[in-house]
Amino acid sequence: MSKSEQHIHVDHVALEEFSSEVFRNAGLSKEHASIVSQALVSANLRGVDSHGVVRLEPYVKSIEEGGFNSTPDVSLTRAAPSTLLVDADDGLGQVATVEAIDAAVDAAKDTGAAFASVRNSNHFGTAAYYTQRAAERNCIGIAMTNVGPNVAPFGGIDPFFGTNPLGYSIPTNQSYSITLDMATSVVAKGKIHVAEEEGESIPDHWAMDQDGNPATAPEDVHALRPVGGPKGYGLGLLVDVCSGVLSGMGISPDVDSLYDDYSKPQQVGHWVGAIDPSYYRDLGEFKEEIDDMINRVKAISPKEGVDQVKLPGEIEAETRNRRKENGIPLGPGVIATLADLANRYEISFPVEIPQK
Amino acid sequence: MSKSEQHIHVDHVALEEFSSEVFRNAGLSKEHASIVSQALVSANLRGVDSHGVVRLEPYVKSIEEGGFNSTPDVSLTRAAPSTLLVDADDGLGQVATVEAIDAAVDAAKDTGAAFASVRNSNHFGTAAYYTQRAAERNCIGIAMTNVGPNVAPFGGIDPFFGTNPLGYSIPTNQSYSITLDMATSVVAKGKIHVAEEEGESIPDHWAMDQDGNPATAPEDVHALRPVGGPKGYGLGLLVDVCSGVLSGMGISPDVDSLYDDYSKPQQVGHWVGAIDPSYYRDLGEFKEEIDDMINRVKAISPKEGVDQVKLPGEIEAETRNRRKENGIPLGPGVIATLADLANRYEISFPVEIPQK
Repeated sequence: MSKSEQHIHVDHVALEEFSSEVFRNAGLSKEHASIVSQALVSANLRGVDSHGVVRLEPYVKSIEEGGFNSTPDVSLTRAAPSTLLVDADDGLGQVATVEAIDAAVDAAKDTGAAFASVRNSNHFGTAAYYTQRAAERNCIGIAMTNVGPNVAPFGGIDPFFGTNPLGYSIPTNQSYSITLDMATSVVAKGKIHVAEEEGESIPDHWAMDQDGNPATAPEDVHALRPVGGPKGYGLGLLVDVCSGVLSGMGISPDVDSLYDDYSKPQQVGHWVGAIDPSYYRDLGEFKEEIDDMINRVKAISPKEGVDQVKLPGEIEAETRNRRKENGIPLGPGVIATLADLANRYEISFPVEIPQK
Repeated sequence: MSKSEQHIHVDHVALEEFSSEVFRNAGLSKEHASIVSQALVSANLRGVDSHGVVRLEPYVKSIEEGGFNSTPDVSLTRAAPSTLLVDADDGLGQVATVEAIDAAVDAAKDTGAAFASVRNSNHFGTAAYYTQRAAERNCIGIAMTNVGPNVAPFGGIDPFFGTNPLGYSIPTNQSYSITLDMATSVVAKGKIHVAEEEGESIPDHWAMDQDGNPATAPEDVHALRPVGGPKGYGLGLLVDVCSGVLSGMGISPDVDSLYDDYSKPQQVGHWVGAIDPSYYRDLGEFKEEIDDMINRVKAISPKEGVDQVKLPGEIEAETRNRRKENGIPLGPGVIATLADLANRYEISFPVEIPQK
């Protein structure tokens, strides 16, 4: 049986309810449990399984061992008309960052542009979740976060900055917003782990060994490379300054990974914001011109083997539509972990667990 | 005699005065002539000769043939506390964009963050010139512009978006601000021209031919590739939306190149902005932490053949210091073009022109 045949499809609503039940049993309020679960399942819907319910287990572990505060008192200060300061109180990153992006959109609708800095936070999931929230309210959304060190600056060989993702969304009249959510490294760390598990080698431009030479065996990886050399290095540095230095959290080497120590807060910083196009021009005209751009991009001659040029975020939107219909495919490893959580808290899992 | 031996070093102050004299003779006011000349010579000082005084001749041609308005009435409206709308009135891009970034910094010091959209503009030189202006006033500066179409979207083979540069600067206590000014393509178009002139082939990941296959001969180049595939594509699209759609100018395929038709305005859009860190935390502490980051980056083990890891913009700052001391090296081609302008307007050129 192939790996994909072992996948079980789970209805996304049932999965979100299950996730909420787990978090409530772990000590989160009903509201916070729902916010985090929506964010995780949203990543699964878009096909970004690395940031979906696979994170339930380490999140719960961090709550239980004390790294994550299960009852955070999130505070928000409007330091200036377009500057919001949010303290996540060591809670789950999603709880504070949803509040941060919503407040940034409110402020942007008032001033034209606004940004929120989030401090004392933890893993926030995907940047796209927040930028799409802004786009749904007709703003251009922006989000970034620092993470633990794993990318070598251009010219160096030691990991220093994180894969430091940055994302944006642009409102459209389509069923999806144009959305980019990119690591500033050539590839995310997860791709190295996958290659290692599969026993495969990696392309020589992804990472370097401890002497700075190309690493082609996953186990030789000492540091990831920034995308486009000095370009990705510069973008990753900007993400760290906006996420870590503006918030006072420190830069990537000062940040703990989700998996480092479950008893310690990660001390991550995020930076999210919104631009309101309606102060520049009529919103309807703006969105019509975006739609016109989309049509023109789709009319470009595709490369051999490509049906049609896609917009950033379009493939993820197609996956979301398909998975809303057919359910979210979960592999045996994830199913087993979720089943353990179900047993532990004595709650029912949405699908029958296959016996090993 | 090697190419570099044929270079003549010209004092940067004298070069800037010469450039101003040329623009005044071409019809610009003393103030506008000075603004544009400072921006061009600043690019030469930083070693970005492709955006320096080599642009004098095409700028003058556009003024004379009517594409550039020599006496623009630049207007600025504060549409919202953090949104500024600037109309360049078809003048030189530098004139309106200097006003735009200065006003954005003023507004950011009031609201925490502000952006200016520039419409009806032309070539604005380097993004770094504007972002560094913001950093000198202790703001994080951001600048982007669309340009004529030459990059194929990821998955496509026809040029559509421009090389759409984006830049930022971060204030420091050093003699330079951290500055990134990057094309969202693998390389700028200029590198293809240089290879063509030198009769050299180009690496196969820079560009593609009209069938979408890697182009290694400069004359086969049909479209440039975005840096990092879907990442550079997504970033270039964002630059076009912020520069072209917010301003109402249209996207890259609607924009004329500087060299297309000297009698027509290019109809370029720009987007520049500023973030004031002092609303996030004490400015002194912010800058100290940036300096600390700089020191930590420089302490990273360098790759073989690299002395020390550099910060974005550091090499350009070193070049600036050297060229302020020793003059700006200009090749025979540029010298000849500038000498022609000197003869035409009967003004003296700062150095003796070698006889051909």
